[in-house]
Order: sequence, then structure tokens, then C-alpha cells
Amino acid sequence: MNDEALLQQGAWALAQRLQRRELRAETLLRACLARIAQREPEVQAFVVLDAAAALARARALDAGAVCGPLHGLPLGVKDLCDTADLPTVYGSPIYAGQRPAADAAVVALCREAGAIVLGKTVTTEFATYQPGPTRNPHAPGHTPGGSSSGSAAAVAAGMLPLALGTQTAASIIRPAAFCGIVGYKPGFGRVPRAGVKSLSESLDTVGGFGRHVADAALLGAVLTGDARLLPGAEPAAPRIGLCPTPDWPLADGDTQAAWAHALARLPARAAACADAALPAGFAELARLQKAIMVHEAARALTHERLHHAGQLSPVLRGLLDEGLAIPGATHAAHQAAAHALRAQVDTLFDVHDVLLAPSTVGCAPAGLLSTGDPQFCRAWTLLGLPCVHLPFARGAGGLPVGLQLVGRRGDDHRLLAWAQWLMQRL
Amino acid sequence: MNDEALLQQGAWALAQRLQRRELRAETLLRACLARIAQREPEVQAFVVLDAAAALARARALDAGAVCGPLHGLPLGVKDLCDTADLPTVYGSPIYAGQRPAADAAVVALCREAGAIVLGKTVTTEFATYQPGPTRNPHAPGHTPGGSSSGSAAAVAAGMLPLALGTQTAASIIRPAAFCGIVGYKPGFGRVPRAGVKSLSESLDTVGGFGRHVADAALLGAVLTGDARLLPGAEPAAPRIGLCPTPDWPLADGDTQAAWAHALARLPARAAACADAALPAGFAELARLQKAIMVHEAARALTHERLHHAGQLSPVLRGLLDEGLAIPGATHAAHQAAAHALRAQVDTLFDVHDVLLAPSTVGCAPAGLLSTGDPQFCRAWTLLGLPCVHLPFARGAGGLPVGLQLVGRRGDDHRLLAWAQWLMQRL
Repeated sequence: MNDEALLQQGAWALAQRLQRRELRAETLLRACLARIAQREPEVQAFVVLDAAAALARARALDAGAVCGPLHGLPLGVKDLCDTADLPTVYGSPIYAGQRPAADAAVVALCREAGAIVLGKTVTTEFATYQPGPTRNPHAPGHTPGGSSSGSAAAVAAGMLPLALGTQTAASIIRPAAFCGIVGYKPGFGRVPRAGVKSLSESLDTVGGFGRHVADAALLGAVLTGDARLLPGAEPAAPRIGLCPTPDWPLADGDTQAAWAHALARLPARAAACADAALPAGFAELARLQKAIMVHEAARALTHERLHHAGQLSPVLRGLLDEGLAIPGATHAAHQAAAHALRAQVDTLFDVHDVLLAPSTVGCAPAGLLSTGDPQFCRAWTLLGLPCVHLPFARGAGGLPVGLQLVGRRGDDHRLLAWAQWLMQRL
Repeated sequence: MNDEALLQQGAWALAQRLQRRELRAETLLRACLARIAQREPEVQAFVVLDAAAALARARALDAGAVCGPLHGLPLGVKDLCDTADLPTVYGSPIYAGQRPAADAAVVALCREAGAIVLGKTVTTEFATYQPGPTRNPHAPGHTPGGSSSGSAAAVAAGMLPLALGTQTAASIIRPAAFCGIVGYKPGFGRVPRAGVKSLSESLDTVGGFGRHVADAALLGAVLTGDARLLPGAEPAAPRIGLCPTPDWPLADGDTQAAWAHALARLPARAAACADAALPAGFAELARLQKAIMVHEAARALTHERLHHAGQLSPVLRGLLDEGLAIPGATHAAHQAAAHALRAQVDTLFDVHDVLLAPSTVGCAPAGLLSTGDPQFCRAWTLLGLPCVHLPFARGAGGLPVGLQLVGRRGDDHRLLAWAQWLMQRL
């Protein structure tokens, strides 16, 4: 089997072979390194790579006992997560050369489970808007999406089977959509954020990317510590709630076609498939998400504002100024409104098992100066519900597109099982 | 006015004089330093002090414009919070000599508001159980409480007008009670945790200490960014809900006497004063809080478990082992139970403006090997409600004791106003 075919199997299939010792960690790592040598000069997914340390770790894993569910799987770590053995710069010149004292909890959990951290992947500036150099592996003139740009591009280019990302607005689902892979944003609060640079206290969520739903589920099981996320028996057909959302007029022809494709196939196969009755306030969620994010970002990044303002990009300075202009009492009212809407949206799951919604306006737009429109993800992030991007379609221009599946609070394991169910029927 | 009398005014009164330039920051700082020279050898509240840097900052503040609401106020920072200019060791030998790249958001926010960081204060090991050297300023053979031991002791000893703390179980309210000062634990999610060593994703809350309610409110206004917290006009008399809680049998004679004192005075003065009808599940909250805390701690501290296990105290290793023994699915069920109980307890505030509850079993116990029983704080922390300790009484042995006032979600500003109201009537 050549390197590309090996990597196309995805992390879950590779994990089975690694666990049975039918595949050596070193063999898999060398396949990744070969693919990186081939693709990285164009894609530019990595901030830093440490092949030598990764090879030493792979050999140690091959020589020892099976370590955990990620045994021998190379992993990319979004450079918003601290690593004790690799520099960590958060996509900002302010942190050039920083070497944190400890691994972020998610990095340590993945290492404990046997993953091999191969490198740090490009993030936009503090996971906001100013992009890094990463290109879309399907079309180098197009954005890979952000802020988890490098992680999504590396997995999509077959350079890595798994990578970590974070989402505060759309930073997992959107790059997954633009790169044509599976992105999993866990439910809020399920994954520890210790050692991950904070942008927004009430929104930041750590998750990850894989080629297939099972891959993301494998990584998700380690991140959440909940073994129920591991791929298992096929679930009963779900009751699907359709949520084009009030932002549907933004959807372009490619997203509309993906939606039509799903609607042509799912109703006959699902236990039910009906429009979800979104509460009237749903249309406010995206605006609330943005206001909460910028206010919290302006406070979380106070040290940087005070001491390194000249090294913040103009777009980030503008965003922080927006946040500072929001009075604390207004922010508290925004939080109260979000709290009430969460309770209302939660009741939709009395009727629907999962909600189907657009992930993005369309395929990855041309250009590298923007990571695309986050609008379709803002509401779900503020609601704190688990989300999975399903990369089942191609747009008219040949670039990937898809839809996201949203699960009930606390139901990440069922969401992933149903995401797998949908992928097999789309 | 001598140094002690100056400091007894409290941060709010001092802030008024500093803002009007009737008091120089350097004068106040020198009073703190004199008090520290006198008290610190016994109390041992500080991990590190930088008097020279603080004096330079005080002189710069005196020479410049008024900087913000904390202009010129010396501040102690719990050594769980990162500081770019002072070592940060989280109460653990693992981090000896660490110099973080940035200030924690709360430290930067306080500096932006004009505070002078005078030093780092003693925390227990990663804000858990293993105590530091700090002694209770009222009785050196007694614990000051923890985990924010140094912050509470420094304010109580008159060495500082304000200090930062954090609470995951009882780590603000309990040391405030044992040291006889006001402790304010904000509502969950209101204060950024960026740069504060994470113990429990769903429980950790940053707050602080002052001599009087107004002092804690001043600090709280900066921490939450909500100017409504600043002391203002006296509110209408509150409807008080009485919550001895199902743990009441643990309360000793001193807490019982404080409770009786409150019940003798409040009913005639409050708009209403009646037993709160706690939901049946309330008794489960303390157990849930402990299980959620240890499970999340075991995951947040994965790097330390993997690479520095020998430098963790036996008591912390035991706690992490307890956490690792809880399956992820069980943890998810605990979170779901807590979520449901939050919604139930929130409805109590339809009938009561504030809830009155015990802070501690009694006064600070003798000995420095334990920081005391956190039981009476566990439920409120898991509920995420804002809490203020009211230090209005003395136990039979002369040590401080009091009760805590709990506010509605999002109502930190009204809680603090009512805390002030109660203190004047107790």
C-alpha cells in the first residue's frame, strides 16, 4: 500500500491496525512525513514540525505496550494549544519563541492515549480573523477556512490522520467544510481548555478533525474522556430536524445544492424529517454570539492590549475596540438572553434527535486574506451544542461543501453515531 | 493617621481619597509595606513580594493622571494567576521558577484599572488541599482556610486592601470566613479565567477579598467589567430566603450562633424572610460538585500526572486517582444532573431576592495541615451562583465566623448591594 492509500483509511481504521500491531507507528509516521514533504511546501499547514522527536516517540511506542486508543497516530496540534516541547505562538508575533512550561490538557490527554504530536498547525491570530499562510489543499488560491486553518488543511491534504482545533465562532466547522473533512465541535464544557489560549470564556471549545466521522469520534472520545463516543453499532434511524435557519438567504448555490441533495435522500430513510420550529429569538443568536465574543476577547487579551498593542493586527485591534465599547451591563444582558435561548432550543430535542443545518455560505472563497463567513456557525456555538460537519458534497467549482449536524446537549456520543448514519446515506 | 488606621478604612474609602488625590499611592503602599514588615513573618501570606517595582509603579501613578477605579490600590494576586513580572508557581514544586509570558486577564484588568500588584499570595497546591505555610492572622495556630490562603490572610492582617482569589469548591468563601473579611465569588462565567491555572473547567471562578462589602464590590466591578457592581445607593430591603441547607447538622455552635443572630435581626427588617424551599435534589449537589471537580482536575492536570507525578502531594495524587476512576459517561450524567438542578434552584429567586446560608462549619479549626471543611460551599459553587461572605460575628473562641449571601444568576450587582444592606443590620 502506498503512503497516500494508507492515510486515506483514516484514523479509526489505522488505529485498529496499530492496536493489533499489524501496522507500526514508525511506518505510519514515515508515510505522513513523505506526504508532508510532498504537500507542505504548497499547503503551509505547519508552524513547526519535529520529525526527529516524533520518530523517537514512534519507535518507543512500537517497542512498548499498546498505550491507548490513539496509540501510534500522528497528531497535529493547533498552535493555540500550549506544548512543553514545541514553541507555541498563538498566531501572533507577540509570542514568538514562547516555550510553555506544560502541555495543554488536550495535548497531554492525546499523548497519554498514545498519539504522536508531529507538529503545531497554523492558527489565525489568537483564533480570530487575521489569517496565516495556509492554503486550501484542494485549491491553493482559496482559503482553508479558519481559525483552525493548518489542522484542517493538514488532515485534508493527507499529511496527518488527526488534528486538534478550537471553535469560538466557526473555527472548526468552517475549515472542515472548506477542506472537505469531518470537524467535530464538542458540546460546551466537555473538553478541558487548560493551556489553550483563551479568547472567549463562554464560547471557546476544543475539538478536532479527521477524514471520516469515525476518526473524529475516536479523537472526541479521548478529548471528552467519554468512551461512548467511540464508533460502535449503527444507531436506529434518527428524527431529523431541518434548520436552514433565518440566515438561509445567505446560502449560495453550492450550499443550496447540498441541502437539496440531503432533502432528496433523508426523508425516506430517517425516522422523521421535519422543519424544526426554531424559537423567534433564534435570529438574534448570531448577533449575540458576536457581541459576547468581542467583549470577552477584549478582556481576555488585556495583557496584549496593554503591553503589545503595536503587535496586534489592525483587524484584531478593531475587534477589541468593538468589545471594549460594549458596557458590562449590556454584556450581562446578552448572556442572560443567550441563557434563555439555550433553554428554548434545548426543547427542540424533545421532537428531533439531531438538527441539520448549513455549515457555511458555500465552498471556500478565493483568496487568502479572509477565512470566510462564520455566520452559519455562530448560533450553534453560542448555544453550546455539539456539532459535526458532514463533508458529503462538492460545489459547482469542484470544491468541497457539506452541512452540519447538531446534537442535543450532553449527547455528543449519539450525535457522532448519527453523523456516521447520515454520511452513509448522503 | 497611622498605617493601621489608614488600612482599616478599606479599599473603597481609600479609592475615593486616591481618586481625589487626597492620598498618594506611595503613601498607601508604604503603609502596606510597614504593615507587612510587622505581620508577614508570622502570617506568611506571600510567596513573593516586589516592593521596589510596586514603589516605582506607585510613584508613576502619583505623577500621572488617575488611571481607573483601582488607581493606586495595592493588590495581592493569588499565585494561581500568571504574572509576567513575578514568578508563578501554582503552589507546586513542579512550577518552581516559572515566569509566564503574560499576565492573567484578571491581573491585567486590575493593572489597567490602576492597581499596584505588590506580590503573589500563597495558594494551596493547584488550589486543592495541600496547604502552604500561611497562618490565620487572628490565631497563628489556626488555618486561614484555603485555597486562597495568602490573599485572605493578607487582607485580614491589614497588609493589603484587596487581593484576588479563586474558588472551585470553597476557596474564596471559606478563607474569608476563617479570616473575618468579605469574600466575593462572582457568578460562574462572569470573570475571565485566561492565565489562571485550571483545576476544574466547570467550577473554577475568579473573585476576591476586601475588608468591607464595598471593597469587594469595587474589585468585583473591575473583574466582571460591570460598573453596576460599584457601591451606590442603598437598595430596597430584600426578600431573604433562608437556606440552612441539608448539611445544617454539620454546623457547630459558632455557626449556629451566627445563624441565630441573623434570624433575631433580619425578619423585622427584610421585605420578607422565609425558609427557601430547596428542591429535593439539593442534597446531592455537594456530592456532585466533588465528583465533577476531581474528574475534571484529573484531566486538567494530565501533563503534571504524566511528567511530574513524583512532585504531586500524596493527597492530590489520591484526589486525581479518584477522578480517573469516574468514567466519562458517569461524569456526563453528573453534569446533566447539575444542569437540571441549576434550573430548579434558579426558580427560588422568583420568591427570594437573596439566599442566606452557612459559609463554614464554624470558625477556623486549629492546625495548619488542613484548610477546613468545604462542605457548605460546594453546592453554591456547582450551581454557579454569585456568593458573598458576610463576616459579622465572632465565635466563642474569639475567631471570626459569618454567613454567606447567595444571589440570582446574573445579579452580582444586586447581591453585593444587598450584602452591604445586611452587614449594616447584622
